[in-house]
Amino acid sequence: MIIRVLATTNHITRTNLTGQTAVVLDILRSTTCIVTALANGCRGVIPALNRKEAQLIAQCLETGSYALAGEDKGQKIADFPLGNSPQAYQPNQIKDKYIIMATTNGTASIIKSAGAQNVIIASFLNMRQVSRQIAQIHNNIAIVCAGTQGKFSLEDTLAAGMLIHLLKNARQEYTLSDLALTAETLYLHHHENLLQTLQTSQNGRYLISHGLLDDISFAAQIDLFPIIPVYESGIVRKADS
Amino acid sequence: MIIRVLATTNHITRTNLTGQTAVVLDILRSTTCIVTALANGCRGVIPALNRKEAQLIAQCLETGSYALAGEDKGQKIADFPLGNSPQAYQPNQIKDKYIIMATTNGTASIIKSAGAQNVIIASFLNMRQVSRQIAQIHNNIAIVCAGTQGKFSLEDTLAAGMLIHLLKNARQEYTLSDLALTAETLYLHHHENLLQTLQTSQNGRYLISHGLLDDISFAAQIDLFPIIPVYESGIVRKADS
Repeated sequence: MIIRVLATTNHITRTNLTGQTAVVLDILRSTTCIVTALANGCRGVIPALNRKEAQLIAQCLETGSYALAGEDKGQKIADFPLGNSPQAYQPNQIKDKYIIMATTNGTASIIKSAGAQNVIIASFLNMRQVSRQIAQIHNNIAIVCAGTQGKFSLEDTLAAGMLIHLLKNARQEYTLSDLALTAETLYLHHHENLLQTLQTSQNGRYLISHGLLDDISFAAQIDLFPIIPVYESGIVRKADS
Repeated sequence: MIIRVLATTNHITRTNLTGQTAVVLDILRSTTCIVTALANGCRGVIPALNRKEAQLIAQCLETGSYALAGEDKGQKIADFPLGNSPQAYQPNQIKDKYIIMATTNGTASIIKSAGAQNVIIASFLNMRQVSRQIAQIHNNIAIVCAGTQGKFSLEDTLAAGMLIHLLKNARQEYTLSDLALTAETLYLHHHENLLQTLQTSQNGRYLISHGLLDDISFAAQIDLFPIIPVYESGIVRKADS
């Protein structure tokens, strides 16, 4: 079985996820938000490509049954009650609601991964649980890093490396692509100082410069929410454990 | 000053190398061949995009003044005396001749880097010398990894990491892109077993499966040829030291 890492959403083609298990990562922001939202009781997260699509989806749902969330090029979308800061996804905001979420990189990655046999949403908060789940599936694995506007991002690749390392510890027979080997090295070299490494990334520096250091610390918490979010029929829901 | 790593030639745009120093790497093959050829006395290497372009360039040169070299998707081009194996670039084949070289990834990377202020060709064989040269230049640096048919390659990123590490030791003020940080980590983690790491890469495994393990060992020799090959006006020549 093969483990590949796709550096950005641009690396997804019409066919290169077919029959595979895709794991989507957007650590410093949207997948950490989604895991948090599901753990805190939201009914499901509906990813949208942009603000307009999110508003169109909202028109199909009953008022009061959903909350709009999102960010466009790093800025919270005006009028949407939730942004891309995971700590905002508290039960009083989201419990029993659908969240319709539009972000620059992360939600597009989920939507574009729909051609895979199954699509799992991961973050540091649930990575061990995801690895236990995937180790049971006899599929090739494509780890889809959201990246940042089409560019490689350190934090997503670092998280991919953690998943690869856990999977290799669980089973021996994986063959790694060059970027998967690199991701595992990144994790092995930095796993004892994950938070500090996230802070040195381009997105980490951006968040710190905007006073959002806490969001990085939040995203770096291993095993905070051991759930498996699965994207199916247009909605990310928590799988039964 | 900023150091960026471009994972493949596809990441070069019309403007993103302007005013910068580009360093081109295709470790497991063409840049190692070019450094070897220049160290062994060839007059210059003329990169071509493909077999046909190489033959057109040859028509402009005097018979006997050049040798054709190249590879197409991993296979030596039939009728061309030289392939993509660095050890073939011996003085008796190339001394005082121009080499017209067409390869799948490496020569295209050099040609596409022409928009940079200066373009330097590097490999492990000359990396320290290249780092000493570049540390004198007050430019942003773009390390262009040839990659493999549009995909990330471990060996080029590992070599980029060595260059970044040497540059950071020479000067303190570099800011690294996320892929540059990752490349340096790759080098720091594997620098004591470079050869073994090259062997685990996808291209390394391909070469081994074709009986070309020696080519990997050759490419892994640090400081074998401390020269600076510069691409200017369509030709790679050895800079005066």
